[in-house]
Amino acid sequence: MAGGIRVINGGTVTSAKGFEAGATFAGLKTYAEDKLDLAILLSRGATTAAGVFTTNRFKSPSVVVTQEHIADGKAHAVVVDSGIANACVGEPGYKDARRMAEKTASHLGLQPEDVLVCSTGLVGVELPMSLIETGIDRIRTTEDGGRLMARAILTTDPRPKEIAVAFDLNGETVTLGGIAKGAGMIHPNMATMLCFIATDAEVAPDFLNAMLKEAADDSFNMMTIDGDTSTNDTVLVLANGAANAGPITPGSEGARLFSAALNQVCEYLAKAIAREGEGVTKLMEITVEGAKSLQQARSAARTIAGSTLVKTAVHGSDPNWGRIVVALGRSEAEVVENKLALYINDVCIVEEGVPIPFHKDSIIAIMSGEEVSFRVNLNVGNSRATAWGCNLSEEYVTFNSAYTT
Amino acid sequence: MAGGIRVINGGTVTSAKGFEAGATFAGLKTYAEDKLDLAILLSRGATTAAGVFTTNRFKSPSVVVTQEHIADGKAHAVVVDSGIANACVGEPGYKDARRMAEKTASHLGLQPEDVLVCSTGLVGVELPMSLIETGIDRIRTTEDGGRLMARAILTTDPRPKEIAVAFDLNGETVTLGGIAKGAGMIHPNMATMLCFIATDAEVAPDFLNAMLKEAADDSFNMMTIDGDTSTNDTVLVLANGAANAGPITPGSEGARLFSAALNQVCEYLAKAIAREGEGVTKLMEITVEGAKSLQQARSAARTIAGSTLVKTAVHGSDPNWGRIVVALGRSEAEVVENKLALYINDVCIVEEGVPIPFHKDSIIAIMSGEEVSFRVNLNVGNSRATAWGCNLSEEYVTFNSAYTT
Repeated sequence: MAGGIRVINGGTVTSAKGFEAGATFAGLKTYAEDKLDLAILLSRGATTAAGVFTTNRFKSPSVVVTQEHIADGKAHAVVVDSGIANACVGEPGYKDARRMAEKTASHLGLQPEDVLVCSTGLVGVELPMSLIETGIDRIRTTEDGGRLMARAILTTDPRPKEIAVAFDLNGETVTLGGIAKGAGMIHPNMATMLCFIATDAEVAPDFLNAMLKEAADDSFNMMTIDGDTSTNDTVLVLANGAANAGPITPGSEGARLFSAALNQVCEYLAKAIAREGEGVTKLMEITVEGAKSLQQARSAARTIAGSTLVKTAVHGSDPNWGRIVVALGRSEAEVVENKLALYINDVCIVEEGVPIPFHKDSIIAIMSGEEVSFRVNLNVGNSRATAWGCNLSEEYVTFNSAYTT
Repeated sequence: MAGGIRVINGGTVTSAKGFEAGATFAGLKTYAEDKLDLAILLSRGATTAAGVFTTNRFKSPSVVVTQEHIADGKAHAVVVDSGIANACVGEPGYKDARRMAEKTASHLGLQPEDVLVCSTGLVGVELPMSLIETGIDRIRTTEDGGRLMARAILTTDPRPKEIAVAFDLNGETVTLGGIAKGAGMIHPNMATMLCFIATDAEVAPDFLNAMLKEAADDSFNMMTIDGDTSTNDTVLVLANGAANAGPITPGSEGARLFSAALNQVCEYLAKAIAREGEGVTKLMEITVEGAKSLQQARSAARTIAGSTLVKTAVHGSDPNWGRIVVALGRSEAEVVENKLALYINDVCIVEEGVPIPFHKDSIIAIMSGEEVSFRVNLNVGNSRATAWGCNLSEEYVTFNSAYTT
């Protein structure tokens, strides 16, 4: 997409130099077909790290421990369990998360503070620590282990989500690989999006953090499945410098390339998550342009993407533009009714705030594809943002109303 | 409910003295079984008026004209069309809304400024003014016309929503009657909740406005069907003093009674709206107590009521308390995890932030009724609020994804 950045065929989280991963069956994810449920990502050598985390007030102690361990901007490994979220379990939650870090550290010959911990799955259930400790000991990390880890972090996502991209810098190849699991409450009582990105670039922690925050704001924070934010949402990036391409510093050409590559990885994974929510058959992309500020553009795009009524209209391939206007009208965006323009897959439907005659059947035909795009021009400013969402289907309701607890 | 307030059997918006209503078929609501689609509420004599309106930035010109006409705190009549929302139509919308007021005024022998205008129905379609003007001329208002008006304001609500209550004051009977139409986007492209309350109490406009605002904040603003706020939402109250019970002034016993009666009418109608959204089979009541402030309690209750995941869990009678915690965690409410308690229909499910063993089958049985109540005690303060919502069903999705525009 961005100039000089290429997608690596079959790329994953271990595509960058100096990273290894491995996974095992610990016995936590009995409800899923793929039983892999415990994974480790490992970086040999000095590695900087940055993360963005859930804003939910009920935070899993796994997130708390990760935030403590990443505070120094360094990390060597990540341990992840899928099946149990380690949330709403009281005192033992924090102890168990720390124990996971300690056990992983001793298994890999690291300090506990070098290990980050992630959990996803059932809320209100304690981690079976003996299974987890035995499992950690069984994990062998390898340079092609990313694919196993991509499977092991899933709960009931239909398939792994992986990507890697590369660019040239100072005569060397810099690679970023990433994997993610879905945000949709795919299995009842499941929440959480997790994303792990590993790069062989050399980046100081503060700058890495700033670039990750920006990339996440444009991707994961612009994506909605059903509006809930989980107790465990986490995006982590580890940078080990193994590419030997020199440090990436603010304002440099390397920074421009790295930032574009990071954005591309995050956007790819965010869209894959939106596309693979439960009962989802369509990806919805909403671009709001001509807004007074970036914040207003983001709010408008996100509000439209999250509207139940827009989601059901997309499900039915219904060019029901009134619902887009209604959702837009309750967002933060300032609007002037007679300046509004609205396009469905680039066909103009509303101009100067008033519907224009369109051939309904052809719009319905356009909307029947796997991707539906809405573009709203507010014509009151110069800011622009894109959000991603999905259709709301009968299957979603059926899936999410089955007994579970 | 409140001391001294009694519900009037068969009460409606014309139950209070000095009010008349009427309705006709103008030909706007061709899609509905009940074709009544144009109605007038009339108060003879000096009448004060107050209103609360949609906060959507795209406001129907009918709302704009009503806000202009109610600015002096007085009104004699309300004219309402159902079938076309008079929204997103550009310039003609404002002219048409004014014309509706003028035509109604000349028909009733009033000034246009004495007439309030409401519209509900399709967005982006101009009002057929010749049908509306002919229709207005045909309407004959009568003292028992409230029941007709209650039908005429509906779009595809399954049934009219009406109530009247009375209390004694200074040896006289003071009556408040109200009708409403639903907020759910029941018919695709339809939005809007409308509510009309008529009372024979004597209340100054500012005080009437303050009491209405309070009542709406505890009822209509605490109710959610699908989270969207329409271009046309309006709640109006008219007070004509015909009970001859003397003026109701701040701090008086009359004010206490009137306020309680107004709250009761609003709460009844708000719950009826929530219960009668499309595909709805269950009313969900969420009470949050022990919050740090009223605003935090309201935010928490509303966020839980609006969560897609909570709504699908209620649909499936699933005691999936993790979803309630997740929704609560993204509300404005401050929480302390180990102080949280949660009850489903008064059975304790979570205590001190940790799930306690409960007999799942009996909770499922409890949740299978037509009303499900969740009570959350945050145990960090003394504020409390209640919100109402409904289950999200497969039928809702089917209904709202059919072609419509």
